[in-house]
Amino acid sequence: MLWVAFAQSQSIQRAEPLHWWVGMHNPELQIVLYGSDIGDCEVKLPKTGIQLNQVQRVENSNYLFLDVKILNNAQSGAYPIELYKNGKKVLTRDYVLKNRDKDLVKAQGVTAADLIYLIMPDRFANGDPTNDVVKDLRETALNRDSMYYRHGGDLQGIINNLDYLEDLGVTALWMTPVLTNDMPGYSYHGYANTENYEIDPRFGSVDTYRELGKELHKRNMKLVHDVVPNHVGLYHWTVIDRPSSDWLHEWDTFTQTTYKDQTMFDPYGAQADKDLMEKGWFVETMPDLNHQNEKMQKYITQSHIWWIEEAGVDGFRIDTYPYNDLAFMGQWTDAIRAEFPNFSFFGETWVHAVPNQAYFLGGQKVGQDVDTKLEGVTDFQLNYAIGDALNLEKDGANKLYNTVSGDYLYPNPLANVIFLDNHDKDRFFSTVGEDIEKYKSAFSWLLTYRGIPQMYYGAEILMKNFSRPDGLVRDDFKGGFPGDEINKFTSQGRTEAENDMFNHVRTLARYRKQTPALQDGKLLHYVPQNDVYVYFRYNEKEKVMVVMNCSDEEQHVTLARFDQGIGQSRQMRNILTDESFGLPESVALKSKQTLVFELK
Amino acid sequence: MLWVAFAQSQSIQRAEPLHWWVGMHNPELQIVLYGSDIGDCEVKLPKTGIQLNQVQRVENSNYLFLDVKILNNAQSGAYPIELYKNGKKVLTRDYVLKNRDKDLVKAQGVTAADLIYLIMPDRFANGDPTNDVVKDLRETALNRDSMYYRHGGDLQGIINNLDYLEDLGVTALWMTPVLTNDMPGYSYHGYANTENYEIDPRFGSVDTYRELGKELHKRNMKLVHDVVPNHVGLYHWTVIDRPSSDWLHEWDTFTQTTYKDQTMFDPYGAQADKDLMEKGWFVETMPDLNHQNEKMQKYITQSHIWWIEEAGVDGFRIDTYPYNDLAFMGQWTDAIRAEFPNFSFFGETWVHAVPNQAYFLGGQKVGQDVDTKLEGVTDFQLNYAIGDALNLEKDGANKLYNTVSGDYLYPNPLANVIFLDNHDKDRFFSTVGEDIEKYKSAFSWLLTYRGIPQMYYGAEILMKNFSRPDGLVRDDFKGGFPGDEINKFTSQGRTEAENDMFNHVRTLARYRKQTPALQDGKLLHYVPQNDVYVYFRYNEKEKVMVVMNCSDEEQHVTLARFDQGIGQSRQMRNILTDESFGLPESVALKSKQTLVFELK
Repeated sequence: MLWVAFAQSQSIQRAEPLHWWVGMHNPELQIVLYGSDIGDCEVKLPKTGIQLNQVQRVENSNYLFLDVKILNNAQSGAYPIELYKNGKKVLTRDYVLKNRDKDLVKAQGVTAADLIYLIMPDRFANGDPTNDVVKDLRETALNRDSMYYRHGGDLQGIINNLDYLEDLGVTALWMTPVLTNDMPGYSYHGYANTENYEIDPRFGSVDTYRELGKELHKRNMKLVHDVVPNHVGLYHWTVIDRPSSDWLHEWDTFTQTTYKDQTMFDPYGAQADKDLMEKGWFVETMPDLNHQNEKMQKYITQSHIWWIEEAGVDGFRIDTYPYNDLAFMGQWTDAIRAEFPNFSFFGETWVHAVPNQAYFLGGQKVGQDVDTKLEGVTDFQLNYAIGDALNLEKDGANKLYNTVSGDYLYPNPLANVIFLDNHDKDRFFSTVGEDIEKYKSAFSWLLTYRGIPQMYYGAEILMKNFSRPDGLVRDDFKGGFPGDEINKFTSQGRTEAENDMFNHVRTLARYRKQTPALQDGKLLHYVPQNDVYVYFRYNEKEKVMVVMNCSDEEQHVTLARFDQGIGQSRQMRNILTDESFGLPESVALKSKQTLVFELK
Repeated sequence: MLWVAFAQSQSIQRAEPLHWWVGMHNPELQIVLYGSDIGDCEVKLPKTGIQLNQVQRVENSNYLFLDVKILNNAQSGAYPIELYKNGKKVLTRDYVLKNRDKDLVKAQGVTAADLIYLIMPDRFANGDPTNDVVKDLRETALNRDSMYYRHGGDLQGIINNLDYLEDLGVTALWMTPVLTNDMPGYSYHGYANTENYEIDPRFGSVDTYRELGKELHKRNMKLVHDVVPNHVGLYHWTVIDRPSSDWLHEWDTFTQTTYKDQTMFDPYGAQADKDLMEKGWFVETMPDLNHQNEKMQKYITQSHIWWIEEAGVDGFRIDTYPYNDLAFMGQWTDAIRAEFPNFSFFGETWVHAVPNQAYFLGGQKVGQDVDTKLEGVTDFQLNYAIGDALNLEKDGANKLYNTVSGDYLYPNPLANVIFLDNHDKDRFFSTVGEDIEKYKSAFSWLLTYRGIPQMYYGAEILMKNFSRPDGLVRDDFKGGFPGDEINKFTSQGRTEAENDMFNHVRTLARYRKQTPALQDGKLLHYVPQNDVYVYFRYNEKEKVMVVMNCSDEEQHVTLARFDQGIGQSRQMRNILTDESFGLPESVALKSKQTLVFELK
């Protein structure tokens, strides 16, 4: 009787990673088996090619963690995993090893040669109305009139509009996370994944995602995957049925992170404060993963490697970077880089001073006690500075100048991602009070300054709003949804002002694309005078001069002072008007105007 | 006839350094000879003991620069320097080598065990009215009713009041510069020296200065000498008759520094901007010395070593640090340290962010391209923070917490000098709106936080005022001047409030003096809650807890959260009231109150 009951209840519901590959750099793999009461089973891997090194059992008897080694002679194919009880085989599940797709473009890395376009996939374009509502999921509300519900945007919608992005001059796509977020509410934003090996079916499938990658690569564009190593959604399957009490950072009662990044580098911090920061939950619906748990470490790392190999991802944007265990982040980066040497990483560091930002970068340039190996950060300091530059009544130019002078603390400032806004911040067009001249200046800066520029969807068509609440800055891109009366993807659908702005961005983005000096060129800048900021980007062949008037008055800027930047050049071309002329003694700028000149 | 004319006009007016010593670590010495038209003379040093390595001639024929070596067998005594023209000896001057005074205490170094008291010697006490006016000098006005003229304070006045300082708990004296400032106006502040080897006769003499050092050392107090390597006064003798066109940083017209410290570390700065910052003159009356000139380098370095050996100086405060040639400052520091290994240095860095401050420190901890060898800076960032902590309507506690978390960028935060105010800044009592509770909190912080505390004369007796114009914060210390009706050096002369504050400072200063944990102990602090900042200073034997209420409301602070700091302690003593009691569950603080507890 007992035996019958056991046999009936037992199965292997999951084996993760979903599959793996032969020929990876690291032959070791951790396979998580999940099934009712399998915890005390013996395990055999009878087929040659995979060697079972260790079976790790945890508190929860529904889990088994297999440490296996994929041998050099392993072939692609199904490898049976056999579970035994009392010497009897009770269950078998095939685990599949595939051949790596050598033709799939992947892991190219995102660099300062790129222009990243950030999309919230629920809000950009709906290319497949059949997936708008998926009955089996916890949230089924679809309501474009509310900023809190899903709107139906998806990967197919983005694929359908890649020509638009290519035309604009974009070279890399970053979407907020696309994994399944089977949460009861607010699932559209994607930062509470409940699966690690599945695209949210309301966005598409792994195949759609791979297709998106291919379509991007066809256009010489890159795919940035937004990863969230710090937390998952409260309904993640390993949270609903935790493997062990040390799988998550558990607290007696809900304990929120203090959002105090300082505790991570502060030489004087109390351990309790560090723990609260790193181990407190980001919000109540997002349990904090225990990065000190080796099984968790492998689980996360493998899942991220999986997406690169499976779908052709080129780089990661890493969510809530300071909240992670930084030593683990270093190992994680090493593990990914071992497989994909050109892969790139940038971490979200929403902090409030240059030292706070610099600490999280890899290389231990400033005496960090840990090497995160991180290449770049989202440069919030320059984000604050460009806002101040254009909005302060006076001395705005100095904010940019002063902020970037702190670059001496960064191992590679060109790897930092600069931006005007994103899905969490006020749209910059609103930040500058919908002043077109200021807004154009901001883009002229973004597309000529040091670092990897990132723009937010719709910025080019004057989308606006403040981020309280944040849903307001996550409006739909008009024309992306069935039934939209206006289509902003076409010049006919855009107003004159929108087309003017679109063309401004496109002109600069395209110029940037063909001008290496604006990509990895050096920066030379001058102490602002009269609230005018002048800088050059240059290499041995090219030279671009940018003159930014942050003052409220018209300015005439005499060029003699900039001889180091101008050098032997005697000709200028205004990139925005395409006018060429001999080097004048001075240039005139309207209030808040920025001019971009190519020097010859 | 020619010969007669020559002989009559020729003399050696100066030989600097004024004298030197046998037995210095560095046997090399540069002797500057100054005399009318001596530039083409041959030079002989006939007496054994000094070897002439090189005679350097400059554009100005009134100078000769002798590079000599003091040989191992040199004895103290007079060494004739003979000048020849056409083979005939035309002039002789004795140069004196002395024996080093082994009994003179010197070069002890100032550390976090000290409490520095800053005095403007013209404004503290007049101990010798005979030197108030020195007729031969350019400024003879003496007027205590004007903040711009000299008031008559002097070194003897300070010597007379050392018991007062010792009683207060002070362990180190820093005076604004005491060298001769023979300028036509504003000479009292001392930052425009016109001589390098002379105490301003209105302050006293080299002998008085040495006496001051001895009196300090007798009381286990130290002497900090304020040096100004960046500039001199417009009437410095080498400026009136420049040795060469590259002695100073000369400009076609007066060119002021931009005060842009960023140009010194900015990776993108234009050379013209760096030059303006470093080579521009601080103000019109202070020519900028050319640190790229090797003769100037030696001239400055030797003069600073001279004062240590001659008068028993223990450490340097270095004026306008960012304006100096930083590579030279590294060499300069090395040269001084070679003679005096325990000597200490702190530089004035009036800058506006932690990275700006960190850059100027030695050790290249944050990837600086130059090693200044500087140990400590005047910690302006914490100065801003303590002001914010006590004055902001909310979140003030976080300003301290956030600022000090950037300490990871400093090679040795304990070497930074922390302060509430100085001769250039608003007096802190005015900064806090003359609120005694806030002011006491500020001193409780100053005397228990990390670093070398520095206080400004009269702060302990509630001297006040804002620094526009700066003379307002340079009032006389009442009782220091003949005829003063009130004597604040005695408790009888102080008001009740002044005595209360004096006792507050004294209690803390004396407690600090006997408590190593407050000197070089470690710091542990907690993320502020309810605008209350809690920190501990501790070593293996001692533990001090400071609780600072930065909020406008009374606060009850539960201690359970601070278990890491409290450890096994079960007894507390309130340092300010001397009450002892068992560890309570919570402590109550009035608005803006700070409590200091010793834990046992």
